[in-house]
Order: sequence, then structure tokens, then C-alpha cells
Amino acid sequence: MAETLKRLSPLFNRVLVKKADAATQSKGGIFLPETSRAKVMKGTVVAVGPGNKNNNGETVPLSIKVGDNVLLPDYGGTKVDFGDQQEFFIFREPDILAKLNK
Amino acid sequence: MAETLKRLSPLFNRVLVKKADAATQSKGGIFLPETSRAKVMKGTVVAVGPGNKNNNGETVPLSIKVGDNVLLPDYGGTKVDFGDQQEFFIFREPDILAKLNK
Amino acid sequence: MAETLKRLSPLFNRVLVKKADAATQSKGGIFLPETSRAKVMKGTVVAVGPGNKNNNGETVPLSIKVGDNVLLPDYGGTKVDFGDQQEFFIFREPDILAKLNK
Amino acid sequence: MAETLKRLSPLFNRVLVKKADAATQSKGGIFLPETSRAKVMKGTVVAVGPGNKNNNGETVPLSIKVGDNVLLPDYGGTKVDFGDQQEFFIFREPDILAKLNK
Amino acid sequence: MAETLKRLSPLFNRVLVKKADAATQSKGGIFLPETSRAKVMKGTVVAVGPGNKNNNGETVPLSIKVGDNVLLPDYGGTKVDFGDQQEFFIFREPDILAKLNK
Amino acid sequence: MAETLKRLSPLFNRVLVKKADAATQSKGGIFLPETSRAKVMKGTVVAVGPGNKNNNGETVPLSIKVGDNVLLPDYGGTKVDFGDQQEFFIFREPDILAKLNK
Amino acid sequence: MAETLKRLSPLFNRVLVKKADAATQSKGGIFLPETSRAKVMKGTVVAVGPGNKNNNGETVPLSIKVGDNVLLPDYGGTKVDFGDQQEFFIFREPDILAKLNK
Repeated sequence: MAETLKRLSPLFNRVLVKKADAATQSKGGIFLPETSRAKVMKGTVVAVGPGNKNNNGETVPLSIKVGDNVLLPDYGGTKVDFGDQQEFFIFREPDILAKLNK
Repeated sequence: MAETLKRLSPLFNRVLVKKADAATQSKGGIFLPETSRAKVMKGTVVAVGPGNKNNNGETVPLSIKVGDNVLLPDYGGTKVDFGDQQEFFIFREPDILAKLNK
Repeated sequence: MAETLKRLSPLFNRVLVKKADAATQSKGGIFLPETSRAKVMKGTVVAVGPGNKNNNGETVPLSIKVGDNVLLPDYGGTKVDFGDQQEFFIFREPDILAKLNK
Repeated sequence: MAETLKRLSPLFNRVLVKKADAATQSKGGIFLPETSRAKVMKGTVVAVGPGNKNNNGETVPLSIKVGDNVLLPDYGGTKVDFGDQQEFFIFREPDILAKLNK
Repeated sequence: MAETLKRLSPLFNRVLVKKADAATQSKGGIFLPETSRAKVMKGTVVAVGPGNKNNNGETVPLSIKVGDNVLLPDYGGTKVDFGDQQEFFIFREPDILAKLNK
Repeated sequence: MAETLKRLSPLFNRVLVKKADAATQSKGGIFLPETSRAKVMKGTVVAVGPGNKNNNGETVPLSIKVGDNVLLPDYGGTKVDFGDQQEFFIFREPDILAKLNK
Repeated sequence: MAETLKRLSPLFNRVLVKKADAATQSKGGIFLPETSRAKVMKGTVVAVGPGNKNNNGETVPLSIKVGDNVLLPDYGGTKVDFGDQQEFFIFREPDILAKLNK
């Protein structure tokens, strides 16, 4: 599985995120609020795209990088399964809520 | 919980806001109007993002800062729970209605 | 209540408007038309935001100011209650229909 | 009522139009077509706004002026009542179909 | 009726078109296809607006002129009735499908 | 019918396409897939418009020309009937999927 | 069938992709996740368009090329059938999720 991970480069401003497992989700305080609201989840950035092109044709690099811990909405990503227990999602950078600095 | 708060940096033009508790909500005059209209609520800015990039690739800093008291619509934010009684929301800056100067 | 009013600065191109009381609504000719159409209402500008930023990053000041009497659609604003009989709304400037010059 | 009219300055690219009375509607050929299609109506421009701002911050004046006779769609305007028999509407300029030159 | 026609100047990028009568519709090959698809109809341009303004504030003249025969979709126009048998429509130029050169 | 074809000049970025007859549709491999997905169809370009104007007011010519064989989605075009067995459609260029080089 | 493939040049920023067969789908880890989420699928780029034009009229070439292995959402493409067992889709480049480097 790790082999495939390394081969995968997200396009444009997309980011591949490994969802933190349940234990880590609640460790350090952020866990899923009550159902009425959209939930948030924690994850770690595994791969990042080059960024989008702006009006002048320049590629605008992303502001997050591999290894960053991030806070994500529980909707909007595309799930990618590598056949093991871990859950991966592809998000567009603007949909990522926040970074969790170490 | 404070630990996690410090680690959390909102991305782009997002803002992390701690919702004022019920007492503070009504102190000084602003409290929830009747149900027919969207409600407003008071909160304090806990963390701010760097801002969005404009067409020239420059990052446009936010016009509100940590510690500001703000007036928020009661919809549109993403709720983030740190496991204690306090309620936190992530809003995009344009959705914040007003500042309540000290 | 006046204390809170002074503390409140609308953000971006928002405007805080005090809705004219019923008597003033109909004095001088503008009163609510039949139900089929959207209604209009009169109000006085109590606080204005700095304005939005244009593509060059310059803040574009609003064309209305505190004290102006304005004509508003009866929909689209966010109601803010200061706990007394008067009704206040926050509107974005482009939604305000007209100024009523003194 | 005339007093209020004079005080009213539409904002941005809005126009205050007095709807022509029934007789004038059909005089000179333009009257309401069958129901299946959106109807059109005639009116006279009573007040005009300064115009919108373009990307360079310049205000773009309107191409119609007070006194112009215009052709309007029978939908889309906001009705403003001055308490007499005449009907007034506030339209945005781009929604006005045509000018009826004298 | 001709009198009113001459007085009517469409605004912005609008065009006043006289719908060809039934005979002309089918003469020369273009007639209404089966119902499943949007129909097309032929017409003659009677009046044209000055054109829209582009970002630099310049008015961009239309590419069709009075007297041109055009092909129109049978939806999207606003019908204007001058009280005789002929049917007139106001279309925005981008909605006009093609010119039928003489 | 040929007479009308020659007279017809599509406007802006529109293209007049003659749909290939059933035999040609399947010759050379591209035929209608199963119903679940949007179908594609082959056609030949019969007439092209001048192109749209960009922000600087320049007309951007089309990248396809008369005689090109193209692949089209089976939705989105406006059908134009010239009274014979052949089917013609007007498409906007961006809706055309691909060119089939000779 | 190969003959037709070679003749097909996608327009603008479109890409022709051959969907990987079932075996390859799951080899190397990426296979279809559970139904609740949008599925992803693997494919190989067979032909690419020239790219879109930006505001200055320049054509912006695509960032993926013939032979690249890519990860695609299982929705949004237009299916093109060449009459054999292989499935082909036309996607717009921004809809392609990631590249799978060799």
C-alpha cells in the first residue's frame, strides 16, 4: 500500500489526507460535536498538488505541506481506499479548515 | 484544551471564534430576536487565518484580530468541539457581521 | 442600549439601520404596498462599515453615511435586537434601494 | 407626495420609474400581450442613481435620464407606494428593456 | 404602429426582432423541427441597442444590424405587442443563434 | 436547402454541425454507448461563427473549422431543420468534445 | 478501433482516458470504496487537448500527458464507446484527481 501512496500526486490544489484514527481524533481535545452540525475530523497531509494557476499563468503553491496535521470538514472530500484499515481522502485546499501546529 | 487551541491556525480567511456564554450574550443589549428571523450571536476571536490571496498573488490580511468581540449570524459557521462546555466555531471573515469595540 | 450601539462597527460593506417607527413609515408618503409585492420600509443609518476591497486591494468607502434616511427592502437584512422596542437591521449596502434626502 | 419624490435618490444603478396609466399604456401601440409571455409595460423615469463602480473604482453613469419614457418587464422591480393612485417601481438599469424616444 | 417602432431604442445589448410570418418561416428551408427539441424561428432585426460596456468602460457595438435576417431560439425573448398581427420580440444579442445572409 | 445553408452564419462561438447518418456513426468505432450515460454522436462542421470577444475586445477565432469531423454530446445543441432528412444542430464550441482527424 | 483512437483529439482542456480493467483497478491498492461515497477509478491517458485560453488569449497546456496513469472520480466524464470491451471517458482536466507516477 505504501508503494501506491508514494506514486500518487494530487493534481492542482488537491491534497491527499490520511484521516486520524479514532483514538487520535479525541486526543488533545477535538472530537466530533453533536449531530446537528457538520462534523469536523483530524487528519495528516500525505501528498499535495502543485497548486492552481492564477490569471497570469503562475502556479500558486499550497500553504500546507506533507506532514501537516489538519482539521477537515466531514463532507466534501473524495474517499480513496488503499485496501487497508486506514481512510484517505482527497480534498481541495480551500476546503481544509485549519492547521494543527505541532 | 488550551493546548489544542494554541495549535490551531485557521486557513485562508477563516476565523476561530469562541461563542460568548448565555450571560454575556444578553449583557450590553444584544440578545436573540424572535425566531422568524436569523439569529445573531456574540463571540470572541480566538485565532485568525493569514487571509486569502488576491489576483496579484498577495495575501490580504484580515481586518479583525485575536481578542476582538464580534457579532455573528447563527448559521454558516462550522462547529469545533474541544470537549469542554465552551462552543467554538470556524467562520469565514466575510460572514462576520460586525465588531463590538471595547 | 446606546452604549452597545456605539461599540458596534459593521464589517466590510455592511450598514446598521434603525427601522423607522410605524408613524414615520407612512409620514411623507412611503408606506407598505399590497402584499403581492415585496414591501419596502424606511430607516436611518446608525453605523457603516469601511467598505469592501476592490481587485487592487483598495477599500472602497460606502456612498451612504450615518444619519442618512434610506429606503430598504423588507427582506434580506439580518435583524439585531438591543432589547428595547426599536428594530435594527444589518444590510449590505448594495441591497439598500435609495436615500431619502432631507 | 411630490415632496417625497424629490427627496428620493436611488442608489447605484437603480432607477425610480412611474408606471404609465392604463390609457397611455395602449396609446401608441404597446399594450400587454397574451398571458403566456412575460408582459411589458411603459413608464417614465422619475429619478436615477449615480451608477455602479467598475473595477477601476470609477462610477459608470447610467444611459437613461429623468424624463425618459421606457419599456419595462412586468416583473423584477420593487414597488414603492407614495399613497396616491400612481404606481412607482425601482428597477436596476440592466433590467430596463428599451427607451421610447419622444 | 410604425411611429412607435421608430421611437423604440433597445438598451445595452438588446435587439428588437420582427418574427417572420409563417410563410417566410418555411420558405428557404428552415422550419420548426419536432417538438422534443427547442424550436427555432426566423426574424428580421428592427432596432438594435448601443451594446454593453466592457471592463474598460468602452461600449462594445453589436455584430448584427437593422435589416439583418436572423435565426432565433423560440424561448428566452420578451414579447412586445404593437397591436397588429405582427409579433415582435426583444432578445439579448448573445441569445441570437445565427445570421441568414441575403 | 443548400442555398439556405450557405446563407447561415452562426453568431459568436457557435458552430453549425451536420449530424453523421447512422451508418457513419458506427463506422470507425464510435457508436452510442448504453443508455445510462450521456450519449455521444459524430458530425461534420458546416459553418462556424467568428468567435467571442475577450476582455480586451479582441475576437478569439474558433479552433475548429468547416469540414472538421467532430464528436458531440447528444444534449445541449439547438436543432435546426432544413426540411430534408439530414439533421443539423447549432452548438457552442466549448460543448464540442473532440475533433476526429482525417 | 485503434485507428479511430489516433484520429481523436480532445478539444480545449479535455482528456481521453482508457479506464483500467478490473484487475488493474485493485492491483497496487486503489479499489472502489464502499458505496456511500463517490467512487474513484484508475485509468490511462490516451489523448489530451491543447488546453484552455486564459484572459490574455494564451493557450495554457495541460499538466498531464499521454501515457500518464490517473485517478478519476466515477462521475462527471462522458463515456465514449469504440465497440470493444474497453471503456473510454472524456474528462475535463480539473476533474482529474491525481496522477499515479510509475
